[in-house]
Amino acid sequence: MGTISHAFTSLSRHSRHWIQRGADRHLRLAVTGLSGAGKTAFITGLVHQLTSDKCGQQLPLWQVCRSQRLIGVRREMQPDLDIASFDYQGALASLNREPPAWPASTRNISELRLAIKYRPVQGLVAKVTESATLYLDIIDYPGEWLLDLPMLKLDFGQWCRQQSLRAEVFAHSPAYAPFIDALKDVPLEQTADELQLQQVAALYQTLLTDLVRNQGFYLAQPGRMLLPGDLDGTPLLTFFPVLSMDMNTFSKLEQAPRDSAYQVLKTRYQEYVNKVVKPFYRHHFAHFDRQIVLVDCLSALNRGRPQFDDMTSALSEVLESFQFGKSPLLRRLFAPRIDKLLIAASKADHVTLDQQGNLLHLLGDVLKQSRHAAHFEGCQVETMAISAIRATDAGSVTHEGQAKQVIQGYELQSDQLLTLFPGDVPRTLPKADFWQQQGFDFTAFRPKDSAGDGLQHLRLDHLLEFMLGDKMR
Amino acid sequence: MGTISHAFTSLSRHSRHWIQRGADRHLRLAVTGLSGAGKTAFITGLVHQLTSDKCGQQLPLWQVCRSQRLIGVRREMQPDLDIASFDYQGALASLNREPPAWPASTRNISELRLAIKYRPVQGLVAKVTESATLYLDIIDYPGEWLLDLPMLKLDFGQWCRQQSLRAEVFAHSPAYAPFIDALKDVPLEQTADELQLQQVAALYQTLLTDLVRNQGFYLAQPGRMLLPGDLDGTPLLTFFPVLSMDMNTFSKLEQAPRDSAYQVLKTRYQEYVNKVVKPFYRHHFAHFDRQIVLVDCLSALNRGRPQFDDMTSALSEVLESFQFGKSPLLRRLFAPRIDKLLIAASKADHVTLDQQGNLLHLLGDVLKQSRHAAHFEGCQVETMAISAIRATDAGSVTHEGQAKQVIQGYELQSDQLLTLFPGDVPRTLPKADFWQQQGFDFTAFRPKDSAGDGLQHLRLDHLLEFMLGDKMR
Repeated sequence: MGTISHAFTSLSRHSRHWIQRGADRHLRLAVTGLSGAGKTAFITGLVHQLTSDKCGQQLPLWQVCRSQRLIGVRREMQPDLDIASFDYQGALASLNREPPAWPASTRNISELRLAIKYRPVQGLVAKVTESATLYLDIIDYPGEWLLDLPMLKLDFGQWCRQQSLRAEVFAHSPAYAPFIDALKDVPLEQTADELQLQQVAALYQTLLTDLVRNQGFYLAQPGRMLLPGDLDGTPLLTFFPVLSMDMNTFSKLEQAPRDSAYQVLKTRYQEYVNKVVKPFYRHHFAHFDRQIVLVDCLSALNRGRPQFDDMTSALSEVLESFQFGKSPLLRRLFAPRIDKLLIAASKADHVTLDQQGNLLHLLGDVLKQSRHAAHFEGCQVETMAISAIRATDAGSVTHEGQAKQVIQGYELQSDQLLTLFPGDVPRTLPKADFWQQQGFDFTAFRPKDSAGDGLQHLRLDHLLEFMLGDKMR
Repeated sequence: MGTISHAFTSLSRHSRHWIQRGADRHLRLAVTGLSGAGKTAFITGLVHQLTSDKCGQQLPLWQVCRSQRLIGVRREMQPDLDIASFDYQGALASLNREPPAWPASTRNISELRLAIKYRPVQGLVAKVTESATLYLDIIDYPGEWLLDLPMLKLDFGQWCRQQSLRAEVFAHSPAYAPFIDALKDVPLEQTADELQLQQVAALYQTLLTDLVRNQGFYLAQPGRMLLPGDLDGTPLLTFFPVLSMDMNTFSKLEQAPRDSAYQVLKTRYQEYVNKVVKPFYRHHFAHFDRQIVLVDCLSALNRGRPQFDDMTSALSEVLESFQFGKSPLLRRLFAPRIDKLLIAASKADHVTLDQQGNLLHLLGDVLKQSRHAAHFEGCQVETMAISAIRATDAGSVTHEGQAKQVIQGYELQSDQLLTLFPGDVPRTLPKADFWQQQGFDFTAFRPKDSAGDGLQHLRLDHLLEFMLGDKMR
């Protein structure tokens, strides 16, 4: 061994540089979640912990920290010039405001790159180099984009029939009736009237937006209707499903002339799939190495059963993107390479420590409802309950002679300091009668003041070990 | 001839249909202009006149109308699904408000398609078909996109030196000093600091925006900084020129390491050219058949000499896009095919009839200043003074025994009805001392109430004859 080591130490500077480069690694870590899951706060908290110099105290379960092999982490130039930069400074500014506020939410895809410098422990690399660097690209994108995946497998007629099954959910919105009324007036077999299509599409967009933003639901197709960006006002987004038609009618409509309203809608649906859904998978998704999906179970419980069920369905759709084994189409078209998937219940600090186990168990139960469960070929899956930026402190009070765990934090709306027991988290999916008897009412908190100790977290070290540990031995 | 005619009338339905299709034509008419030139109002007025059924009275100089060959015009599905639809209804709604308001301005590229059905007079087509259709696509895009064209020919260093020559214009903005101060603090030869580049780029964006929106200037590179859309926050727009460096410094910076601030800015500049400027020319510009450039000379006169000179320069840059003969690069890269170009002085109704000749002459004089003047190979150029939506009525008053032309309309800000002589329009570019002695103060008017007679215009028929006449014989 001594000989080999000697041979390497006598290598030229150039060769050493080359081996050094070989020791560096790149990892693209994608972060997503349904609307309101806390993606921006998560990335902000993660970057804060990584770049703080208190890694040993703050991230003890991350091996590279515990063994004091982490040399330093700094932000570097991101690799993709046409993706927005993650606005870390803006998010920090929100958290440092008086009173602190949660950062603004994800409106598009964004990214940042961190260079994580460390001392390797294993193998050849450790012998010849003093340090190695892991380049970590963190990519933040709306989970709604994953919800469009099933459209790849459906033609317009099939998609319409699938959306028809959601009538009960749609009916929660006061925007449903105006859409349905306008839809009835579209003469589907006759020459399309652009103005009419625009008006009905606008009503459908209002319906989807109201369902997600105001009624607390999660599923919405096409997903870009919620955040259209440069697609705003284009025919690519000027379509809607034809609801509640029988198969005979669909067969007739399939024979309608090319310039009929039905055929125009059908063409636009197909073009949306080809020009919006597929490019996301081809240009972004196929290049992710690892994925974190954030799930806010507590807000979904607060909202009620229809919403919780909708979240369960939406998660099931999201997970389909990671089921390469079950989706040869996905594998063939885009060759995704994600080998680790973490599904994390966010805002775990919003319940007491003794309830966090229930929260994790509930998340597992939600995932079991997925029709895709446990078919993640070549992809290691893990669940955790985390908090990337703690909003509360844990404590206990004595009540009637018994110690009881509580949390303390500032309520989001009122900015009042509250000490409370937020209630039990159900360990499994609550039964129907439970929803009727009592609802849930978990309190929303604003972030803690971070002036003193910096931002606090729950289990980010555990998460980092799962996500990065094997790349930093 | 009789024999041929007979041969054709006995053709099968299928063949007749085929010839009918052959008689139909497609024309892509692009409309642009610098910020505030009135593109949206122009297209709205044009579409209104075309689709009104009073074409004979309203558009007498358009041959197809005068000879009563126009059968009808209607809006059809636009051909490009990924371009926003021109919001004609929204623009009409503004004009029909009480009091009427000008429609909101162009924020991106948009289009609409009209099917113009007419009876041909000439040749084979007239013999076998009773009608033909001209499909007219009208495409509206910000003139600022054309101002980026010169970047294609400049590397980053050359671009920086060219921007340095604009110091006098930049100095009109209070946002110039903060940008220059921050620029001085960028260590150009050292490793780039992303956060610093973002901050300085934001200051440069503020400077360009202030110059165009508040100080009345026209030139701004990169043009997308004014309307970033989905490019907002991307490194593609996170660059700025390095100003006031001597050639030695530039030579040294060209040797700086790849990750230096200078090299990062250089890479982003080049990527902006490749991923933003070139695609516009390749995907849009190369497919335009005819082009209208709107110029608001009166507002530029109001603003003052530096602004008027800047408009002259900007127009010169815009015209470069149409000088295929002088730009083999453009011809080779994009093969544009524009064969008719109209440069129109807009808002001609804001001066009296006897001043409109001067306005047209002034426009000609402005264009003569262009270093590219009169080199439009294979492209027929025309100038006009027009008003797509009249804001005033013309009349005359007797003053000291003399008849004097006046205009009457509602002043934009106060909504007061004014009858006035707006002043003389200079027939040529005013001399320096003229600007010092007296400025211009042309009044801005809101649109007329259109409830009675519909929208009125000036010379849209003349414009239509130039743009479409040869395609509708």
